[in-house]
Amino acid sequence: MDAKTFDAKSLLDSLFENGILFESGIDGLYGRSGAFEDVIERFERLVTRLGAPDKATRIHFPPGMSRATLEKSGYMKSFPQLAGCVHSFMGGEREHAQLLGMMADGGDWTELQKATDVALTPAACYPLYPTVAARGPVPAQGLLFELSSYCFRHEPSKDPARMQLFRMREFVKIGTAEQVRSFRESWLKRGKAMIESLDLPCEVDLANDPFFGRGGKMMANNQRDQGLKFELLIPVTSIEKPTACLSFNYHQDHFGRTWGLKFADGELCHSACVGFGLERVALALFRHHGPDVEAWPAAVRDVLWGV
Amino acid sequence: MDAKTFDAKSLLDSLFENGILFESGIDGLYGRSGAFEDVIERFERLVTRLGAPDKATRIHFPPGMSRATLEKSGYMKSFPQLAGCVHSFMGGEREHAQLLGMMADGGDWTELQKATDVALTPAACYPLYPTVAARGPVPAQGLLFELSSYCFRHEPSKDPARMQLFRMREFVKIGTAEQVRSFRESWLKRGKAMIESLDLPCEVDLANDPFFGRGGKMMANNQRDQGLKFELLIPVTSIEKPTACLSFNYHQDHFGRTWGLKFADGELCHSACVGFGLERVALALFRHHGPDVEAWPAAVRDVLWGV
Repeated sequence: MDAKTFDAKSLLDSLFENGILFESGIDGLYGRSGAFEDVIERFERLVTRLGAPDKATRIHFPPGMSRATLEKSGYMKSFPQLAGCVHSFMGGEREHAQLLGMMADGGDWTELQKATDVALTPAACYPLYPTVAARGPVPAQGLLFELSSYCFRHEPSKDPARMQLFRMREFVKIGTAEQVRSFRESWLKRGKAMIESLDLPCEVDLANDPFFGRGGKMMANNQRDQGLKFELLIPVTSIEKPTACLSFNYHQDHFGRTWGLKFADGELCHSACVGFGLERVALALFRHHGPDVEAWPAAVRDVLWGV
Repeated sequence: MDAKTFDAKSLLDSLFENGILFESGIDGLYGRSGAFEDVIERFERLVTRLGAPDKATRIHFPPGMSRATLEKSGYMKSFPQLAGCVHSFMGGEREHAQLLGMMADGGDWTELQKATDVALTPAACYPLYPTVAARGPVPAQGLLFELSSYCFRHEPSKDPARMQLFRMREFVKIGTAEQVRSFRESWLKRGKAMIESLDLPCEVDLANDPFFGRGGKMMANNQRDQGLKFELLIPVTSIEKPTACLSFNYHQDHFGRTWGLKFADGELCHSACVGFGLERVALALFRHHGPDVEAWPAAVRDVLWGV
């Protein structure tokens, strides 16, 4: 973690050597030290503190959601390569004997499992929209939620900032186009100020999601042309390709239409979210301020541990 | 949640009606309110406070682990019905078109996914043993860890105390048979006193794991005969069949042998863990003290929110 070298391998090696992350044998799947967890918790409190004036309603979803909900959300159209579904063994004793035999022979016993109703949550807000829709019409002033969830994306990588299982904290606004755009604007400002208060270099840029396939290129271009996604980027494993640590997304009425989110007068709701990639922010802090949290700059320690 | 009726349906309905849990359409998969999360966090702090004198090393693992590690641990032999493996789509554009076609026709598109290297963590301590083994010999005084993790078990149920995805906090001791038994003894006492301080009725009883199949019955009997598993039980959805909220497990040298956990002199390590089922404890608190945490008994509030 010296000041000049920004690459994935040297950062990951240093995190292992300093006992901040622990190897699991799988790229993108790591144990976290107590120090790492403390940084995440302190950063989460900072986010909550900055969002407190808005009085968001807190809801927490587990790392898995209804597969039917994921299907209906359109995720398998846009990001089929990233989704994860949970499969389980549902056989009897004979099939179990077969499974153990295949395992002993080094065969692929997983084919004896069947898909359950559970899919892994790809982003903290996916389970929220049907939950809100079930409560009836959205009030005129809109609704604001604070979420946190473990998320899964199947993209094994040796870049520690690209984990397969990671935590995302989110604020989600559901309301009129104007309400949700103004919510996003306010977090573009607050998010940048927050990261700067942690003495991290950052820039905010237009961005697009990793839509699948050739059709996906067009969707990505559309998303950029309409300014639907911004990211706050911090150099973590590369100077040239900094890491998206916060993202600011305007969904237009995509989720409103999909889930029937409406005001009392029948008008469709728009939505926007700001997402905080908790592992990524923690990695940025360790990358820039070093492996020993006690030796981080006093001003940064004060922001995270001072209150 | 009246004082007399203890059944799963009335508890779950009351949790939904009071906005403490949110339906997902899948049994055992629920959103949690801010109040529920606050109870979980406060209880976690209580556990950490009670364990602090032992100076455990904190490690956190994500809700997924290496599938190879799960296989080697023997989990698929004992509990194949509970395990979950993550499958993902790994095809190109043609297969994607096929997937979307199957989805549109209501077909089983999940067969187009393949098993990834990731399995869901079934208990917080499973990823720990190979992590510790990789660090070399265990010191003579043994090692003590504090873990927390989301865990998955495929057992869809309308009993809110039997969730498919739930959080478990654990202390794990790795050492000599004597060290780990004395660790377990101390937590049998501390755990009971802790739950009693929350004004919850409880009893500690000999127990067994839900081993699979006919062979499993023998394993369960062995486990009972040898006193390897105790549970702290609280009535949550039934008086006759109270819910296991804490468990105290002595693994003998099972994980020591499996993962080569040894002292410097080559002697195999034993291990024991105490697990706290966080959702179950929270549900017990809501069941016995009511849906409004502000109205819980002053002594209970003091234990959870007083420090």
